Amino acid sequence: MLLPSKTVVIAGLGLIGGSLAKALRRAGFCDELVGFGHREGSLLRGVELGVIDSYTLDLAEAVGRADIFVIATPTLVAAELVTDLIALVGDRRDGPVITDAASVKGNLQRAANAAGGYSRLVLGHPIAGSERSGVDAANADLYINHRVILTPEPDSDAGAVALVRAMWSATGADVVDMSVADHDAVLAATSHLPHVLAYALVDALAQSDASDDIFRFAAGGFRDFTRIASSDPVMWRDIAVANREALLGAVDEFSQHLVLLRDAIDVGDSERLHEIFTRAKQARDGFADRLATRSEPDA
Amino acid sequence: MLLPSKTVVIAGLGLIGGSLAKALRRAGFCDELVGFGHREGSLLRGVELGVIDSYTLDLAEAVGRADIFVIATPTLVAAELVTDLIALVGDRRDGPVITDAASVKGNLQRAANAAGGYSRLVLGHPIAGSERSGVDAANADLYINHRVILTPEPDSDAGAVALVRAMWSATGADVVDMSVADHDAVLAATSHLPHVLAYALVDALAQSDASDDIFRFAAGGFRDFTRIASSDPVMWRDIAVANREALLGAVDEFSQHLVLLRDAIDVGDSERLHEIFTRAKQARDGFADRLATRSEPDA
Repeated sequence: MLLPSKTVVIAGLGLIGGSLAKALRRAGFCDELVGFGHREGSLLRGVELGVIDSYTLDLAEAVGRADIFVIATPTLVAAELVTDLIALVGDRRDGPVITDAASVKGNLQRAANAAGGYSRLVLGHPIAGSERSGVDAANADLYINHRVILTPEPDSDAGAVALVRAMWSATGADVVDMSVADHDAVLAATSHLPHVLAYALVDALAQSDASDDIFRFAAGGFRDFTRIASSDPVMWRDIAVANREALLGAVDEFSQHLVLLRDAIDVGDSERLHEIFTRAKQARDGFADRLATRSEPDA
Repeated sequence: MLLPSKTVVIAGLGLIGGSLAKALRRAGFCDELVGFGHREGSLLRGVELGVIDSYTLDLAEAVGRADIFVIATPTLVAAELVTDLIALVGDRRDGPVITDAASVKGNLQRAANAAGGYSRLVLGHPIAGSERSGVDAANADLYINHRVILTPEPDSDAGAVALVRAMWSATGADVVDMSVADHDAVLAATSHLPHVLAYALVDALAQSDASDDIFRFAAGGFRDFTRIASSDPVMWRDIAVANREALLGAVDEFSQHLVLLRDAIDVGDSERLHEIFTRAKQARDGFADRLATRSEPDA
């Protein structure tokens, strides 16, 4: 199948957008890579590094040039861009395919619906990242063997869905489909909730009277458990706001289980503690085995 | 200072006890290393590996031979041993120095007091471990640059305290003193609570309807966050029982912070979320820097 993909426009030239650009260039997926954004500095740097061929600060121009328009901005900016883009493309059946790489899908779906919808919009989420950020950290290998979740709607344009799938496949990613609701619930459980728990734990300890001793005697297990509390506060604030509903559901489900465990500790119910810990260990060992097989070292 | 330490008896020849034996032998700290326990298999293996010189299955004999008696058994067994040992040594001023390596100190202190007390008992806790277990995994380097917390009482025999300190110093550990209550609160916060949270999270997800998708799409951040849920359920059941009071306090303090965060997510209070996440990130980054300086790679 020959797919038309002359020009890919990437909005937000950070680690995610820059890595996509480098992977697509290496794969020969498109003729031209164009950056769009408000911060000319990283766009200039992108051209200098050869990550993109050119850039524009004008959204209408970017849309006019795009065969595929990839939103690779932070979560809340992505929702604004979806609104602005749909206002520009209207209901054109020959408009650019629009997709994104943000961590939450529900807020973008709502923004799209509020703007009147666009059948060539296909939301997506690459499950990949790095401790590093910015276009200088862009890495053509970032998506190899990593999952990319697409959330096409029943009325999505089939050609648009195929093109977005082909784009991510070209990066070496493993592309799967899911509903918006399932995506947001699964990501809330496996990523957003753990971040909230890690932030809550570190903040509780930091505000404790014994905070100095606590951090003095914490060791390697604590370091691993709290690593994600070193993540970017702005990014995670936006995700918590954007995925409010699914995240609250995940927090509540977790809290109910924590109450059960607390009660077992309180009454010294050894049998119940052993049962819960054993079940959890089995689930976690099974997950670790599966992750190792997937050879996805540091998503 | 010349310290009398002809014979060190180690009860429980697993990773912790075996590593202590190997480190003491390398340091030339004692003339003789004797194993004590009920499972002859690991004691025989200990002799075969040269970790200990000999062993006995008889507690009275073990006590009779010991200059230092180290309890390196699981947490709840340690409490029983403290009781039995004090019954054997009574209030002898020339009895062996008794110490331990268990994760909780309060339950041992209570057991000792209930048995009438013993001034040559000095409780301790090496903050070290490994994914591996058993005497075959024993490693003479395990304690190098790791913290060992001692919790001497005001009426502890000064010579006994000095001897236990000298023993751990000989392994390369960094020995510090703390009260029993502080030890249990700090360990509850930095180790026992994170284990409970990880177990509660994995169990909640494993029991969720979406459990299959959840573990299918979880990635590296989740793996790090939940690593401690792969810990030994029996060991952690015993710790949760032994450190009940401090652990409940830590769970409750955490839960209060989680409720605050949940409320901020619920009402979409971006400013508050940003404030909490930023404060937590700063505390966690500071801790990680400190841990790196301590060059304690995997406690």
